[in-house]
This record gives sequence, C-alpha cells and structure tokens, in this order.
Amino acid sequence: MIGIYEFIDDKRWGREHSPSDIEWFIKGVTSGEFPDYQVAAWLMAVCLNGMTDKETTALTLAMEHSGDVFSPCLDKFCVDKHSTGGVGDKVTLFAAPVCASCGVYVPKMSGRGLGFTGGTIDKLEAIPGFRTSLAYDEFISVIKSAGFAITGQTGSLCPADKKLYALRNATATVESIPLICSSIMSKKLATGADGIVLDVKVGDGAFMKDEQSAERLASAMLRTAELAGKKASALLTDMNKPLGRNVGNALEVIEAVEALKGNAEEDFSEVAYALTAEMLSLAGKGSPEECMAMAHEAVSSGKALESFRKMIGLQGGDIRVIEDYSLFAQPKYKRAVYADKTGYIGGISCEKTGLASLKLGAGRKDKSSDIDMSAGIIFTARVGDRVNKGDELAVLYTSTDCDIDGIAREFADNFTICENQVKNRKNVIKVLRNC
Amino acid sequence: MIGIYEFIDDKRWGREHSPSDIEWFIKGVTSGEFPDYQVAAWLMAVCLNGMTDKETTALTLAMEHSGDVFSPCLDKFCVDKHSTGGVGDKVTLFAAPVCASCGVYVPKMSGRGLGFTGGTIDKLEAIPGFRTSLAYDEFISVIKSAGFAITGQTGSLCPADKKLYALRNATATVESIPLICSSIMSKKLATGADGIVLDVKVGDGAFMKDEQSAERLASAMLRTAELAGKKASALLTDMNKPLGRNVGNALEVIEAVEALKGNAEEDFSEVAYALTAEMLSLAGKGSPEECMAMAHEAVSSGKALESFRKMIGLQGGDIRVIEDYSLFAQPKYKRAVYADKTGYIGGISCEKTGLASLKLGAGRKDKSSDIDMSAGIIFTARVGDRVNKGDELAVLYTSTDCDIDGIAREFADNFTICENQVKNRKNVIKVLRNC
Repeated sequence: MIGIYEFIDDKRWGREHSPSDIEWFIKGVTSGEFPDYQVAAWLMAVCLNGMTDKETTALTLAMEHSGDVFSPCLDKFCVDKHSTGGVGDKVTLFAAPVCASCGVYVPKMSGRGLGFTGGTIDKLEAIPGFRTSLAYDEFISVIKSAGFAITGQTGSLCPADKKLYALRNATATVESIPLICSSIMSKKLATGADGIVLDVKVGDGAFMKDEQSAERLASAMLRTAELAGKKASALLTDMNKPLGRNVGNALEVIEAVEALKGNAEEDFSEVAYALTAEMLSLAGKGSPEECMAMAHEAVSSGKALESFRKMIGLQGGDIRVIEDYSLFAQPKYKRAVYADKTGYIGGISCEKTGLASLKLGAGRKDKSSDIDMSAGIIFTARVGDRVNKGDELAVLYTSTDCDIDGIAREFADNFTICENQVKNRKNVIKVLRNC
Repeated sequence: MIGIYEFIDDKRWGREHSPSDIEWFIKGVTSGEFPDYQVAAWLMAVCLNGMTDKETTALTLAMEHSGDVFSPCLDKFCVDKHSTGGVGDKVTLFAAPVCASCGVYVPKMSGRGLGFTGGTIDKLEAIPGFRTSLAYDEFISVIKSAGFAITGQTGSLCPADKKLYALRNATATVESIPLICSSIMSKKLATGADGIVLDVKVGDGAFMKDEQSAERLASAMLRTAELAGKKASALLTDMNKPLGRNVGNALEVIEAVEALKGNAEEDFSEVAYALTAEMLSLAGKGSPEECMAMAHEAVSSGKALESFRKMIGLQGGDIRVIEDYSLFAQPKYKRAVYADKTGYIGGISCEKTGLASLKLGAGRKDKSSDIDMSAGIIFTARVGDRVNKGDELAVLYTSTDCDIDGIAREFADNFTICENQVKNRKNVIKVLRNC
C-alpha cells in the first residue's frame, strides 16, 4: 500500500502513478485526509513533470467519482458543451436551444464567472425571475420538455476538483494540461452526457495563448474522453478579440436572442454555428455540413427561439424579455468611447475589455461580490473596420458608482488602430475529433 | 512589491528570484505569514527547477539571519565541521579535541540523530552527567578553556530552516542541492566560525548515492561559503560501509576515545585524520601534509585526549569513562552474528546496519523516542576480511526488550560474502577547496 510521501515522491521523480494509486489519492483529497501542503507539493510536481494520458484519464475518472455522478437515462442523445473561457462568449445560449429544437438534448450544468470571463449562469440570471438552482428532477423534466436546461453545478459534483482548484489558484499550479484537462473533463463526465463538444479558446484573451498549447490541451481532453468511452470533438476558436459585439450579462443574453432571431455578428455566427453543427453531428444528426444547414434552418424557422422561450418559462424567467429588452435591468450611466486617430482597427484587447467590464460591475472581483446585470460594453466598431478620428468605438454601461469616466478614458487604449487594414484571423481555427 | 503567488509562479516557470524577493519570502516563512501549502508548492518548484548560485547564497543568508547569529569574537581561528550524515560517523569526537589541542577553536553546535544516522549530541549524552544544553556564555567559556565545546542547537538558530525542513520531510522535497546546501550552510554561518570543513558522504548509506551528485552538493556549499566570505573545504568520503568498527552511542564514544589513544581502525583513521588535517590547514596551521603530522603528534603525545577529558569535565561529564568503559550504560543482552558461508567480505550495508541499530534502541524512530545508550553493534569482521563459515561477524547489544534474536538472524544478510577478495574503495575520495 502506498503512502502519501511515496506518492508525492513518485511524481517528484517523474514516475508514472498507477490508476489505483491515483484513485486512492483522490479519495484522500476528497475526505480531507491529506494536509494541503502535501497536495500542493504534488500539484507542483505534476505541473513540472507532467502526466501520461493513462494517468490523466485515471485522475479524471477518480475526480468524476469523488461526488455525484449523473446518468440522465433519457430517450435522446445528450450532448454537452464546454468552453475554456473567453470574453463575450455567449455561445451556449445559442447552441443549446438550436440543438434542442433539432431533437438533441443538452443537459447543461454551468459555472459562474470569476475574474474577467463571464459565466453562463450569471448571464441567465439577468432574465427577471430566472432560476439557476434546479433540483435534479426538475432539471431532467425541463430537458424533457424544452430539450435543454441550464442549471448551476450542485455542491456534490466533483468535490475533489473543488479542493484541487482552490489550491491550484493559490499555488501557481493552474497552468498544467493534465490538471486543466482532468478538472474540465471530470465535471463533463459526471453530468452524464453521451457526447461532449469542447470550445478551446486560443489567443491573448484565453488561457491558451498559442495554437500549439491549445491543441495539446484539446488532444488531452479528447484522449481522456475516448478512454472514458465518450464521443467528443474540440474546436480551437479565436480569442484575440472579444467574441461578438456585446460584453456583460443582460447585453450578452440580448446578443444571443438576436442571433436566435437570425441577426448574428459575423464572428459570433461563425463560432456559434460551427460548435452547434458539431454538437448535432456528434449526436448522429448527419455530417457537419448537413448539421450546419439544419442549424440555420432551426434559426430561420423560429424553432430555436421557441426552445429558448420554453426553457426560460420553465425555469421561472419572464419570457417577455425575448421581445422587450427594456424588461432587463437598465443601466443608469453610459459613456461612449471615441477613436483618437483615423485608420483601421487592428485589434481589441480581450483582457482589457474583460477587466473594464469587471470594473463596470459586470463581473465578480471575488466569490462574494454582487453583479450589476445592466453593466457592460457594446462595441460600435469591430476589428477590420475603418474609423475616423472622433468616431464612436464602443459604449460603456453601468448602474454602479464606479469611475465610468476614468474607465472610458482608458478604454480607448484597448483598440489598436493601424494605417493599413489587417488580415482578419480565422474565428474557427481547427476542428479535432476523437470518433 | 512581489506577492507570494508571483513568487511561486516565478520559480514554477524557472525564473531567477532576486535576493530581496528571497529575503522577503524567508521573513514570511519565519513569521508564519504564508500558509504551508504555498511554501510546499515553492519547495517542489525549487526541487524541479533548481536555483542559481546567487539564489542559493541569498537563501542561505536569509535563513541564517532568520534567528540568532553568533559572532564568538575569540582570539583564535574558529573552525567548524559538518557531516552530511552516515552510519558509525564519530569523526567530530576525534577531530574537535585534536584541533583544540593544536590551538584551533572548534565551536560545535550539533544536531540530534533521526532515522538511521546518529547525532553527536546523542552520543555524548552516553557519558554520565554530560550536559549538551549549554547557555551561550558557558559554551564560549568551555571553548576558551578546553579549545572546543559541543552543544545542542538553540531553538533560535535558523528558525526558517526548522520550518522548511519539517515541510520538506513531509513533501518529498528533501533531495534538492540548493535546499540541502542552504539548510546546512545557514546553520554553519549562524554559529559564526571563521572556516568550515564539510564531510560529504557518498554511497548507498549516504544521502548522495554517487560521486557526481556529492560533488555537486559540495561545490554548491563551497560557492555559498565563498560568496558569504568564509573559508571552506569539502571532503567526499565513502559511505558504502559503516565507518569504523562500532555503531551506537556509548560504543561510538568508546571508539573515538580509542582513536584519541592511538588505536583507530584503518578506515576511520583515514577519514578522521584527513578531516582534522583539513580543519587545521584551513585555520592556517600549515599545509595539509604538515597538519596531518601535527594531528598525529597531538594523538601520540596524549594532548588531544587531554583536551577531550577537559571538555567532558567542563560540560559536567564523568571523566573517568575515558579509562573505565564500564562506567557507560552496560547492555543487558548481546547476540553474536555468524558467517553463513566461507569467503571474503565484499560489503556491509550501511542502511541495514543503521536500521538494525535503530531497532536495537540506539536511535529515534520519531522525535520523542528515548534512546538506549548501551545499544549498538560491534563489527568483528570488516570489508576485505577472509571469513570461514561459522566465524563471528558482529555482536549486537541492547538493553531494550526488542526482538534481538530476530534482528541478529536478519543481520547476517547485511554482509556480502564473495569468493574473491574485492578491491577496497578509497575512504577519502576527493578534496575540494574554495581558497
């Protein structure tokens, strides 16, 4: 029988853990048997010495089974989606109703936002009355009726991940592919979907700054899914600029509703349809091309919007918001940001946009902060646009007593304005599939 | 101003810490400002990403200054000695009185034994009445009178090292050259000697299993001493077999007294004289060759034994033990171990010898265990000896109710008996000097 010292020592010297040793370790982490300093030393050893695919899978499965594991046992294919996090990423609010309206279930347990990326649960709470803490039975019944449901994660989902994540956040051990992979995949596996589509963001606004490391993470997640017997795909998508035009909670719900009405920004449309088609294809609805056409039809026919309306109603939300955006919390203050020179917009900083949004009140500085649902940013100009000095670039909104003038002054620096038009990057960089 | 997260992150990515960052970190470790899990993550990052000489020196100095720093201000050169720990290593009990009798002061603050290597302080406590907790003034006055004194480390010597060491022991981060180096050197610098001679043990009974890693550790310690402005030398000495004939507390004091009387085992003699000559030479008493002759003269003239007698008396010990070994605690039980075949002794396992000695009661299983001063082992046969089946190889002693028969049965396995005589290894492998 291994002891905790030997377990740490194994990884310190780069030896491979056996699946049973990993299972034993995660049981001890979950029960709180090991002091944090021993777990922290092991996390750092993993960061620096890595893990094999076999170890990563064993870790993922052990974390999955550290708490409740759901098996919805529904009559249709269930597909889940995960994004590694970006600024302006409201894809779930589009993809889930589209898939649902095409006969694929989407059982979504989402997280809250922390730092400069927003969480789907927070965004939905911008809808008056919307409930994000469904009991499991109700979650299943909303899925059966609307085709999808979106609820917050329960306290008993992957408790080992919660403990490890809190420690990683305090010990500079967040950036490790096996640790990121097992953290994401353990939760995805525990929710019991039949297939998983991963949106791995790449760029300076993402966790993975370059394509290579994003692809390494995506591959690790696909291999883990495969070893766990799940169908999965991963799309590498661009996060060198905020996704779409709106950032903030109510503002992002509005942008998603507009997309479901057929009025999507080009970049958001490209990413959202590609992910949606991949989800449908994974569910056996046809080739990615056929599924793309199916998704477009779901939007143009109004079926997808209908699914969204139904889900909102079942989860207690005011369905009138879909037609009347004034029912969302309205911002008390707004400030426009203007171009300080003439040229082409070459870039918009994701990180600075996210931080500005946080300062405006749209995000949480720490776990206990309140969110201003009305706060956020609407980009009037996008990357590639020609602007003249003095043109409006964006409008900032808030209902809090933040220094909106100061934030607006700094916000102009988020835009890179160039003499020549820059070639726009691809929004969907690569698709990887395990099946 | 750096924060603890950034500090860990720096080492996680292999960046060099500035001396001021290291000083800030060690202050926080000493005050208990940082939770253990953050310190543990940093220790693992150091193990895997290493430290530069500059960092190691800054760490050593910061740890030195985390508690009391002594400056004896004596009228003669003060030389200290440190051994990285071995089985049967009673060299301090020989070298210190020899140096003292040659006009060099040896202010020795020693540790206790833990695990299978013994501590000098424990060994001296085998002498009835001997006091090992001297107040600093008394410590200095014994040095002035006898030329050397040996006391336990005070609680306020390098408190940062105590905290780091306890964590390292629990997190598999003991084996790291910069961490070992700073732990040893911070204590050596804090005791305020003018010069330091390091005995770095090499072999399967030592921390450093091979010559290369031992040399790396020795070099790191010498560079640190040099950057701290101290004269230092290091000897790599063999620890592939127990040093000398006796292992155990009273038994090792007796072997050291015998050596001071001129009756040393060949291997112990080689190591003990080489270290002693190096200490004298570092103190400016002449070339290593001249100092070797001086050491031999100190023994043959009886001056060295006289110094030892004086120190024992001043520290409250019964000086009659030097002539009458029956005044030491006598073992209640003894068992001889016999050769199970005929041949040449090719090896004696240090680790198994140390563990047997521990089981007999000569060491501590944990910090609170009591020690049986009478317990230990006397080797009748040594490496290179020809033995016949049934010849006595060693005698085990204890006063505790341990399973002496079981220990004796297993003990025969400690000896490798070969058909042909094996070439004996060098006892002093290499000498490294920083000046």
